[in-house]
Amino acid sequence: MSILKEDTPRRVLLVHAHPEPQSFTSSMFHAARDVLLQAGDEVRTTDLYAMNFNPVASASDFLARDNPDYLVYAKEQRSARDNGVLATDIDEEVDKVLWADLVILNFPIFWFSAPAILKGWIDRVFLSGPFYGGMRFYDRGGLKGKRAWVTATLGGRPHMFGKDAVHGDIDAMLAHLLRGTLGYVGFDVLEPFFGYHIPYLDDAARAAIFDAFRHDVANWRTRPTLSFPSLDDFDEHLHPRTASGAAPC
Amino acid sequence: MSILKEDTPRRVLLVHAHPEPQSFTSSMFHAARDVLLQAGDEVRTTDLYAMNFNPVASASDFLARDNPDYLVYAKEQRSARDNGVLATDIDEEVDKVLWADLVILNFPIFWFSAPAILKGWIDRVFLSGPFYGGMRFYDRGGLKGKRAWVTATLGGRPHMFGKDAVHGDIDAMLAHLLRGTLGYVGFDVLEPFFGYHIPYLDDAARAAIFDAFRHDVANWRTRPTLSFPSLDDFDEHLHPRTASGAAPC
Repeated sequence: MSILKEDTPRRVLLVHAHPEPQSFTSSMFHAARDVLLQAGDEVRTTDLYAMNFNPVASASDFLARDNPDYLVYAKEQRSARDNGVLATDIDEEVDKVLWADLVILNFPIFWFSAPAILKGWIDRVFLSGPFYGGMRFYDRGGLKGKRAWVTATLGGRPHMFGKDAVHGDIDAMLAHLLRGTLGYVGFDVLEPFFGYHIPYLDDAARAAIFDAFRHDVANWRTRPTLSFPSLDDFDEHLHPRTASGAAPC
Repeated sequence: MSILKEDTPRRVLLVHAHPEPQSFTSSMFHAARDVLLQAGDEVRTTDLYAMNFNPVASASDFLARDNPDYLVYAKEQRSARDNGVLATDIDEEVDKVLWADLVILNFPIFWFSAPAILKGWIDRVFLSGPFYGGMRFYDRGGLKGKRAWVTATLGGRPHMFGKDAVHGDIDAMLAHLLRGTLGYVGFDVLEPFFGYHIPYLDDAARAAIFDAFRHDVANWRTRPTLSFPSLDDFDEHLHPRTASGAAPC
């Protein structure tokens, strides 16, 4: 990845999922919008709870189907947008993602993952075809050139995560999202922002995390990204290329 | 874990999530029920799509709240069931999980995780309090003594998973579910069953996987389980105990 020029306005999609509008996580959503707008970025938002977004992938996501008798969801996704048969709520979200230079997912961690309403936004919006398909994933994914950033809160404390910690590395617990979802479709994935132990902190500790978050949002252009596999290291059947295999240890 | 006596009837909850009732994954659900009943097990089912299950955790999950002005979902969960204020659809699912000796989650992998309708079943049903809390997790979790089993289908091929493979180890991608969810609440987690490449296989290849699945269901009592941390290796603040720390390497 290259560091973005500091003063270039960018398009940012803020996706937010929290059931309590007054929550710390919801305040992060509003603060991120303010900081980005002040920096001159364009911002669009998807506030999933406020929208009452339907997270359940189903046959009704397609107004017409290639195979009306038997649903293979990913197969129907491939041509649905081009054919104008994708459900409107999905189509609008796809527009936003394709418009954005940066997509921020802001949520409280539920079960080491996203709340279901956000998982379902991914299930329904990350279309086979436009977003990925065949050999178009990881560094050849359909969203190559865009960035994604997970900004999340959780109940756990920092010392519960890490190599020898009780839950292991938090990025490893979130591999399905960071690598298997955002990395898979081609995003450069910024290092996540985690607000630890939020429900149990006093106001001063929360304020310090909130300030750190605003600072990090203001500096998203220069935030480091995570490393994922390159398809250059695999052959056309996705077997590892011998020459670039992992070193023995 | 101890191997269960082969001939003891057990209570099994089958949780299923697939949008196509004719799908291979849905056939697995029905076959699992048949095989278990033939073996003398008691079976209850949760067919999430058929039930039109609501996967979105929200304020309306509590008929009354400890704090009506500000929702902290996990905090409200703690006493809601005992106080009789938990939404009926959640309460019924909690009953089933607490009844079961084995809980099977049967689903197609969407984004290296469960479909949102199943993620939301976890978000809403795995109650703080009865299922976990404080130092009650992993091998001290509230569901200690029960088993859980992920039986899933996916589009990928086996060689795409493993140490040097393009997606890494599949159990690592599913760590949030296997360890961070099922292991967290105390289940002994059976080695998952994966049906690879299902949407692209011919009938003969599918039939072979189906036979293997029926065989594995018939033999669930002796299926090996995954290993997770023991809280015995951590102190009362969840710092690793020095004496049992990981060996340097």
